[in-house]
Amino acid sequence: MYRTHTCGELRISNAGQSVTLAGWVQRVRKMGSLNFIDLRDRYGITQLVADENESKEINDLVSTLGREYVIQATGIVTERQSKNNKIETGEIEIKLTGLKVLNKAVTPPFTIEENTDGGEDIRAQYRYLDLRRAPLKRALELRHRMAHEVRNYLSDIGFMEIETPYLIKSTPEGARDFVVPSRMNPGEFYALPQSPQTFKQLLMVAGYDRYFQIVRCFRDEDLRADRQPEFTQIDCEMSFVEREDVLNTFEGLAKALFKNVLGKEFTEPFPRMPYKDAMEYYGSDKPDIRFGMKMNTITDMVKGRGFAVLDDAEYVGAIVVPGCAGYTRKQLDELTEWVKRPQVGAKGLIYIKYNAEGIKSSIDKFYSADDLKAICEKIGAAEGDLVLVLSGAKRKMQTALGTLRLEMGSRLGLRDNSVYAPLWVYDFPLLEWDDETERFYAMHHPFTAPKPEDLDKFYSNKKEDLEQVNANAYDFVLNGTEVGGGSIRIHDSKVQERMFEVLGFSKEDAEYRFGFIINAFKYGAPPHGGIAFGFDRFCSLFGGQETIRDYIAFPKNNTGRDVMLDAPSRIDVAQMDELFIKSTAPEQE
Amino acid sequence: MYRTHTCGELRISNAGQSVTLAGWVQRVRKMGSLNFIDLRDRYGITQLVADENESKEINDLVSTLGREYVIQATGIVTERQSKNNKIETGEIEIKLTGLKVLNKAVTPPFTIEENTDGGEDIRAQYRYLDLRRAPLKRALELRHRMAHEVRNYLSDIGFMEIETPYLIKSTPEGARDFVVPSRMNPGEFYALPQSPQTFKQLLMVAGYDRYFQIVRCFRDEDLRADRQPEFTQIDCEMSFVEREDVLNTFEGLAKALFKNVLGKEFTEPFPRMPYKDAMEYYGSDKPDIRFGMKMNTITDMVKGRGFAVLDDAEYVGAIVVPGCAGYTRKQLDELTEWVKRPQVGAKGLIYIKYNAEGIKSSIDKFYSADDLKAICEKIGAAEGDLVLVLSGAKRKMQTALGTLRLEMGSRLGLRDNSVYAPLWVYDFPLLEWDDETERFYAMHHPFTAPKPEDLDKFYSNKKEDLEQVNANAYDFVLNGTEVGGGSIRIHDSKVQERMFEVLGFSKEDAEYRFGFIINAFKYGAPPHGGIAFGFDRFCSLFGGQETIRDYIAFPKNNTGRDVMLDAPSRIDVAQMDELFIKSTAPEQE
Repeated sequence: MYRTHTCGELRISNAGQSVTLAGWVQRVRKMGSLNFIDLRDRYGITQLVADENESKEINDLVSTLGREYVIQATGIVTERQSKNNKIETGEIEIKLTGLKVLNKAVTPPFTIEENTDGGEDIRAQYRYLDLRRAPLKRALELRHRMAHEVRNYLSDIGFMEIETPYLIKSTPEGARDFVVPSRMNPGEFYALPQSPQTFKQLLMVAGYDRYFQIVRCFRDEDLRADRQPEFTQIDCEMSFVEREDVLNTFEGLAKALFKNVLGKEFTEPFPRMPYKDAMEYYGSDKPDIRFGMKMNTITDMVKGRGFAVLDDAEYVGAIVVPGCAGYTRKQLDELTEWVKRPQVGAKGLIYIKYNAEGIKSSIDKFYSADDLKAICEKIGAAEGDLVLVLSGAKRKMQTALGTLRLEMGSRLGLRDNSVYAPLWVYDFPLLEWDDETERFYAMHHPFTAPKPEDLDKFYSNKKEDLEQVNANAYDFVLNGTEVGGGSIRIHDSKVQERMFEVLGFSKEDAEYRFGFIINAFKYGAPPHGGIAFGFDRFCSLFGGQETIRDYIAFPKNNTGRDVMLDAPSRIDVAQMDELFIKSTAPEQE
Repeated sequence: MYRTHTCGELRISNAGQSVTLAGWVQRVRKMGSLNFIDLRDRYGITQLVADENESKEINDLVSTLGREYVIQATGIVTERQSKNNKIETGEIEIKLTGLKVLNKAVTPPFTIEENTDGGEDIRAQYRYLDLRRAPLKRALELRHRMAHEVRNYLSDIGFMEIETPYLIKSTPEGARDFVVPSRMNPGEFYALPQSPQTFKQLLMVAGYDRYFQIVRCFRDEDLRADRQPEFTQIDCEMSFVEREDVLNTFEGLAKALFKNVLGKEFTEPFPRMPYKDAMEYYGSDKPDIRFGMKMNTITDMVKGRGFAVLDDAEYVGAIVVPGCAGYTRKQLDELTEWVKRPQVGAKGLIYIKYNAEGIKSSIDKFYSADDLKAICEKIGAAEGDLVLVLSGAKRKMQTALGTLRLEMGSRLGLRDNSVYAPLWVYDFPLLEWDDETERFYAMHHPFTAPKPEDLDKFYSNKKEDLEQVNANAYDFVLNGTEVGGGSIRIHDSKVQERMFEVLGFSKEDAEYRFGFIINAFKYGAPPHGGIAFGFDRFCSLFGGQETIRDYIAFPKNNTGRDVMLDAPSRIDVAQMDELFIKSTAPEQE
């Protein structure tokens, strides 16, 4: 061992001990005859001090030290003259009796501090230096802690972690697969799993009634901000369960995480909300319920006053923004521009300012003060509140109003990242019609069971009927982010075959892609269901951050590149030949 | 919930309770008016009983049940007439009051029993049915338990589990990489990691001084028996450590596993053996020390008696096979044929039978009884023992004699799989010369540090010097199987550059492949080292089995195929087009 202690552990109670530390030079300061070194490791920072009057040798060596040098320091733990109560080791320092440079360091391209001067690109390229910074260290520590708690909790209640393969069969449905050419099977390819969905269901068929796995998944999608081609899931499945059993089990897991990782205790059940309500009141399938400001449908209340915009609208919705009746013309114009951005997509914004001195709105021409007051009262607006109204096609404007609600919540500081508001959303539509390909897609995935009461409609051939079939599916939503999603699965091979039929697969195609699972269901499949949590996202929310990238040790950028490794990269033609493939990409050099 | 209890939990103390179970029909038996059902789930088997005199409805349903039907059964826990002390629920049975078929099952293609009638191929195809069998369930339970113990042990002593990427850069050196074409970066490929070696070293540079990960690794090798293209490692790395620190830390882990998983306590330190001794005394770098029968070098003792075979031999070695002096001519002939098989590669076998009535050998013509007795005494053979001698080229015959030793150990029943003999082997050669490519290869991998005392030779340009450089490397060997391997790493970028030079990489090539790590070492790399354990193998040894396949939920066969999924498989040309690749494989249809 190069050290007797870490840089985070020595206290005043260790005074007088001779110790050896090893770590990185955070900084060196000279004060009179004294040289101070802040020595850093994963556990903290300890101050070292060398007195020029005592050892010339040590001080000569200190004068050669640069930032991020790796050193080994021996000395006596001593009470400090001027204590630093910002760090846990701040009451002591080490009076050096020995010093050794273990490795030199060239000057890093950015500062290794809580807040660095390095831009995103340079930090990505030198990820191993960025990872030395405290915020990233805290992020990875949190992630380790979360994973460990998940495993302990689930193992304690009888779940088995079972590893499923990463080299599987390509069955693209939804996102694209990454594929892996097989050298031993010319012309054939493995795929990397988008999730272990079929494997966990096979494990249920095999009788492993409580399975979980913290597992990597791969999706070759066009990367939007904060999406990674490889990401980690907490993947879970149970047999002989109904929806309530799954929700209660994983609500228990979430509560244990909140308590053990964040020290936050949830004694009440998490709220549960049908998808329909989520859309109606929050304009989103993942409502942020840290704040109210629920949406109100006022379509019927506003009709027949001769205002064509509202008379013709399929949907008119309103939110009450508390205490904002004093918004200026300029603020309201800015908000109007904001909702007209293509990302929101409204045609305009109607406001009603409910001031003590009276009601003022952008639709005074068509609606009397009494009309407006009636609306305000109906939707619970009080004096001092601002009412914002959007109108148009129902689904689109619900979503737009939901987006506006979130924006107003943010502007009013109602979305505090240290506040946690978990929520279950359930009863999603089973199918989504795609106009372009003229077929249904599974909203969740093709193994999700329709709700038993909707089975008649599921076997109907009418598009309207199929659109109304609800899935026995549920999402775990945290602070407006979908963190988990799952469902009760189909366990009847006939229902599964019908599902593939509804999705427009030919019998042959269904057999080729999913034959193994349709077949497995014939050998005694138990009723089962499960859930998968996005682990990267779960960690970032627990860390109070919006971005997942800091919670992944070696993430990729928006074009799927690891800029540190410079991957992906070209490979030798010989390597391709062995794999029976040829590149058709235009030559780059 | 479809059940109140599992099929493994009810005892006589539950008698009188009304319970609901769910599971698979193991078998149905009729005895008089009684129908018995063995109901199975992951936890055990519980006997259900239906009396024809009580409910015709239930009995009619029972008569429709087939093997592996999934049923839900309600009834009263009752003390059995004839108890079965072979199963934990054997004192009770459930008198049925209700029965429901949850899912039918077609007859499985093999029996779901401890020992099945199914062959390997059919079981692989129906892996989900094979996984229902108790031996596989025990294997996966053991694996889950092992992983959980590893995580708890390492987390408790400050190790962080950090996930490293699976889509990395291809840097083949040794085994072939699996590659993944990138759609977003035309003509470029990711590789799947053969191990997270470089990442864990970068984590050390980043200051995460105790890292581990239970992680999948990928090697596109020609599969030998019991090798998988994807396999799992317990991957570990530590900073500020020397060899002893690493060995002590992971000896602690191994001891905890032995104790907590197998109930076997090791109070003494594990034996440690230099590679040189392992080769000399066991003819193997992974000695099975469950039994003695150590090899003896007798080259000098046998020279000069005019027997050219031994006079000319570079090496003559002998083992003492206890109590086998009575071997017959036929047995000895068979052994001689055995050592002459190409897998062993000896030219012949010399024996000395040390009988009470005198010494008899196959070389009586050249050696007197006194000569032979002297040899016997020198190597510790006693009356009743058989001495077996091989001679020839040193390394080859050491290995052959080691193989013979193992064979004799097996024949004498000295290799009991419930006995565990762990061992550390250390001080391996750093480099291996390959005559074909006329270059050195790293025996471990190119990041392994040479031993400090061999640095002069490491900088020599003489092949003989380089061949003598020892690596600061070590293996963890269990019962003759290498379960773990690691080393102290190079942490000086100059030494690392020299290593690439010794391996014959041009500066450009080293920079292109490993530039990121050479560069990282310039920014303050701490001294570090680590180890990786083959987790599949570790589990199978703990399970007392030779084959790893039962310890992997969904393994691949010897041609790298998953026969259940039928993967790898052909993919659409459109899919290939998107990835900028073309198949050059001959058309198969």
